[in-house]
Amino acid sequence: MSEKLLDHIDFPADVRALSTQQLPKLADELRRFIIDIVATKEGHLGASLGVVELTIALHYVFNTPNDLLVWDVGHQAYGHKILTGRKERFHTNRQLNGISGFPKRNESEYDTFGVGHSSTSISAALGMAIASQLQNIDKHHIAVIGDASIASGMAFEALNHAGVTNANLLVILNDNAIGIDPAVGALKEYFTRVKSSRNDVEQHNIIEALNFDYSGPINGHNLEELITELNRLKEIKGPKFLHVTTVKGKGLKQAEEDQVKYHAPGKFDKDSGDLLPKPNVVQPPKYQDVFGKTIVELAEKNNRIVGITPAMLTGSSLKFMMEQFPSRTFDVGIAEQHAVTLAAGMATQGLIPFCNIYSTFLQRAYDQIIHDVAIQNLPVIFCLDRAGLVGQDGATHHGVFDIAYLRCIPNLIIFAPRDEIELRNILYTAQLELEHPIAIRYPRGRGITINWQQPFEKIEIGKGAYLKDGNKLAVLSIGTIAKNVSEALKLISENNEVAHYDLRFVKPLDESLLHNIFQKFEHIITIEDGTVKGGFGSAILEFASDNNYNNTIKLLGIPDEFIHHGTVDELHKICGIDVESIQQAIKNIL
Amino acid sequence: MSEKLLDHIDFPADVRALSTQQLPKLADELRRFIIDIVATKEGHLGASLGVVELTIALHYVFNTPNDLLVWDVGHQAYGHKILTGRKERFHTNRQLNGISGFPKRNESEYDTFGVGHSSTSISAALGMAIASQLQNIDKHHIAVIGDASIASGMAFEALNHAGVTNANLLVILNDNAIGIDPAVGALKEYFTRVKSSRNDVEQHNIIEALNFDYSGPINGHNLEELITELNRLKEIKGPKFLHVTTVKGKGLKQAEEDQVKYHAPGKFDKDSGDLLPKPNVVQPPKYQDVFGKTIVELAEKNNRIVGITPAMLTGSSLKFMMEQFPSRTFDVGIAEQHAVTLAAGMATQGLIPFCNIYSTFLQRAYDQIIHDVAIQNLPVIFCLDRAGLVGQDGATHHGVFDIAYLRCIPNLIIFAPRDEIELRNILYTAQLELEHPIAIRYPRGRGITINWQQPFEKIEIGKGAYLKDGNKLAVLSIGTIAKNVSEALKLISENNEVAHYDLRFVKPLDESLLHNIFQKFEHIITIEDGTVKGGFGSAILEFASDNNYNNTIKLLGIPDEFIHHGTVDELHKICGIDVESIQQAIKNIL
Repeated sequence: MSEKLLDHIDFPADVRALSTQQLPKLADELRRFIIDIVATKEGHLGASLGVVELTIALHYVFNTPNDLLVWDVGHQAYGHKILTGRKERFHTNRQLNGISGFPKRNESEYDTFGVGHSSTSISAALGMAIASQLQNIDKHHIAVIGDASIASGMAFEALNHAGVTNANLLVILNDNAIGIDPAVGALKEYFTRVKSSRNDVEQHNIIEALNFDYSGPINGHNLEELITELNRLKEIKGPKFLHVTTVKGKGLKQAEEDQVKYHAPGKFDKDSGDLLPKPNVVQPPKYQDVFGKTIVELAEKNNRIVGITPAMLTGSSLKFMMEQFPSRTFDVGIAEQHAVTLAAGMATQGLIPFCNIYSTFLQRAYDQIIHDVAIQNLPVIFCLDRAGLVGQDGATHHGVFDIAYLRCIPNLIIFAPRDEIELRNILYTAQLELEHPIAIRYPRGRGITINWQQPFEKIEIGKGAYLKDGNKLAVLSIGTIAKNVSEALKLISENNEVAHYDLRFVKPLDESLLHNIFQKFEHIITIEDGTVKGGFGSAILEFASDNNYNNTIKLLGIPDEFIHHGTVDELHKICGIDVESIQQAIKNIL
Repeated sequence: MSEKLLDHIDFPADVRALSTQQLPKLADELRRFIIDIVATKEGHLGASLGVVELTIALHYVFNTPNDLLVWDVGHQAYGHKILTGRKERFHTNRQLNGISGFPKRNESEYDTFGVGHSSTSISAALGMAIASQLQNIDKHHIAVIGDASIASGMAFEALNHAGVTNANLLVILNDNAIGIDPAVGALKEYFTRVKSSRNDVEQHNIIEALNFDYSGPINGHNLEELITELNRLKEIKGPKFLHVTTVKGKGLKQAEEDQVKYHAPGKFDKDSGDLLPKPNVVQPPKYQDVFGKTIVELAEKNNRIVGITPAMLTGSSLKFMMEQFPSRTFDVGIAEQHAVTLAAGMATQGLIPFCNIYSTFLQRAYDQIIHDVAIQNLPVIFCLDRAGLVGQDGATHHGVFDIAYLRCIPNLIIFAPRDEIELRNILYTAQLELEHPIAIRYPRGRGITINWQQPFEKIEIGKGAYLKDGNKLAVLSIGTIAKNVSEALKLISENNEVAHYDLRFVKPLDESLLHNIFQKFEHIITIEDGTVKGGFGSAILEFASDNNYNNTIKLLGIPDEFIHHGTVDELHKICGIDVESIQQAIKNIL
């Protein structure tokens, strides 16, 4: 085997020292490097394999980091990281204290803009381009964005603005016809027509109509074609748009063939590409599957139920409903704002919309929750998957703000199940003629109950639950963090002094239960996997203030800082909401 | 003068009983009716004058309220209100207990969807159309949206989804080339070309590319043309798009000529159209002008300052900077998401962006604040105009959630000036190499200081202010509500017992000052013009809990319900934060 080019490459300057003829070999090696490490360390695979050539071409043609390159979302930036000083650390990807799975400004000067959520790249790169222009600095500004991300409203807003500037901006559409699930929407169909027809009519295209210099589509796996075109575009003034077609998962047969599964495949055999067999043990279900399977059961009996997801058909497990009831299931693309107001419109006409959005992505539809749903008190059912700390995806993806940002909204019910059965029962309850909108937050990952498919039971709105008795201190938890509390209580010697309640509803609070608690217990601890500032604990403080209680109240939760990546257990420890920290907090009070 | 048609019209059925030939007369009368009332009662004028014919045509052709009509934003819905049962109550528009200035579901069955913020109509109408389809109900669903609103990302998301459905949806573009300020952006330029050229190239247009059946542009003041076209469109299946051109302010000469001023002109002479002369007294400035004039002063000395507004150039008074420094001032259109991330991109390259967004509209960019600004700790300066209760615009526009939704975000500084000089000084401070993003919230309307243009003084971050001494109870206020507190304290007999502090910073709190306060005073009252849930008072409770204080703390602020329209003073009273309620709250404790 010949010597590896990649062994001698640490930074883009090393890539630029190669001849064009050497680049295909580098691409092969880079692809292999990504596969070998992701096969054992896990992570996002398909997107980065798809842009290996584009990544090399960009760093070859442009003078990074002086020229500014912004990757949208960042799933696809592994090759970029490896070529920009992080080859040796790449095996620490997504681990505690390791490199981030996404571009991050404080990790490298080549990461010009931190990403994670989609569709921010054009706005950011345009901001940079305008800044250069105002400061008379001559450099290039490039945003690389996928076809699923460009269909999001925010990207359109940026294109609409860029088109009336003369900023030196190059937008590269990485068109592989898929986000995490296959891309949807009229714009995607349009790009497909552009690719297939290339006739005169479609040459006058949407992008040109927005005043961009449009070129393409070109083959994103042909380095020569990419380099020629990028060099040509360097000389063109004003906003430019290059349409590049790529294959997600390129170079690994299984990843090309099952692009959804190989988006983030978990461990796999690096040579065959086969997924490693799962351990043959019965496990509790993922919360997403409790949602996905329960909504199908409910939809079978209640034909007013519809399901909505903004581009997370697989991740939310709404795909089960899509299989059974395709006409009642809506993947609207990366369009959280639209998803929420669409649900509101449906609710006005008597449908019962389950709108499933990851907690972190619901931040994109905050105004719509207030303005279109809550003011009108429309009974939309928000299912907030990935609430709390999500682990390896890190700061951009933790769903830790939802309690604080939702709690101030009038009319809204907020519920957090402590286990699968509670989730199942609140989904059942929510479709029984609820008179208010409701947000149901539940975490990433698996629950704790094997036999979770029990008969439905209605949950009384605003009713908390008593879990364990005590006489001196009460721990009030919300959601699945109850598990850590239960384990902590089993382990401490002061066990009989400590009671445990699951409030279940952040809003409305179970005031009757709280009065009992405040009258019985001298000390209160609240615990949540959300921000302490403005969260559930804060709601308990407000209750105490309203009712002139002066029990001591200690709040546990996510502190006022951004929490980075690591396993959920590691992050719980950092935030002081792991089993041991809970024990310690109790001991400190008693 | 002949008998008025309008006298006999209460509902659309009455309009439909007229002959087509009678409709132009009805249009004249309706226009006159709007002018006569808005001239004395104030309100939004230009938009409604522009759609008089379109409003009549829609109710004439479609079978409202069975057919569902959604107005975007709702500034233009006065004619609609008058023709749908609210003629007699129209003079109560925007007043306490009167009708709302916007469509509102609980006001009329003809108001199918409540609005106020822009660009929601297509999503809502599509949701309705899909609901009808699933329930096999045959009706029409129409969204009327302006050219400024359709350029917002959310509208694009809805078009992108609608284009892959076969829903019976009609989108009507009311193209008058202006929002509140003249519309901007590449899409607007594109529509202008469509209107002027109508050549074959532009016939293959953006809207058709998104799979809509496109027709127009047609003259929106020609009733016959409108009715013919709407009748034709009734027979066409699937998503349709009608491009209508109108003149904002149509029928009142001054309103046509100065469309910005006559958007909401205040009182004017109903015959001549002239604005009524303002009382010739020296008044304190509007807070928006303190911002607008101060940023010009600062920008003169610091060339790294840029100003950004999403379509509120006049409302924010950023127009002053646009006049002086057009190349450093950016009106990005109704694109709050883009505005924030654009600012973040600029900040990475050393610019100092002042991003001015009304508090209620910043809800549209919540994720961008967290994900693009705060995680990266970029020193973007958010100026939140119209914070607190805004008065007559009502529930959709009150800026009362900002403290709660911002307070949970790490790295962010939150400041609320109590007067003009404080606003001026924090703007000055913010551009002095701040190491964090900052949100500065200030209210609609005028301040309290005539001679506000004092020399700049730097404000120490996190430092509160002592305003008045006392010995038993301390009132802690934030922002301009301090004025009500000061007045209340002047009036009560227990004056010497009550101290008053302005915390100024919601975040970081002045902990040193708070320790002094909690050690000195038995009782604390907090007051804010934001939601009590999760707001400033809640932050004080968290401080007390953290530090084991058990002083009694009473929280005043906006209660957990949507507050409707009325004057700010009336609404303060409803919320218990007017002078009298503050006095009462103090007396109740002492």
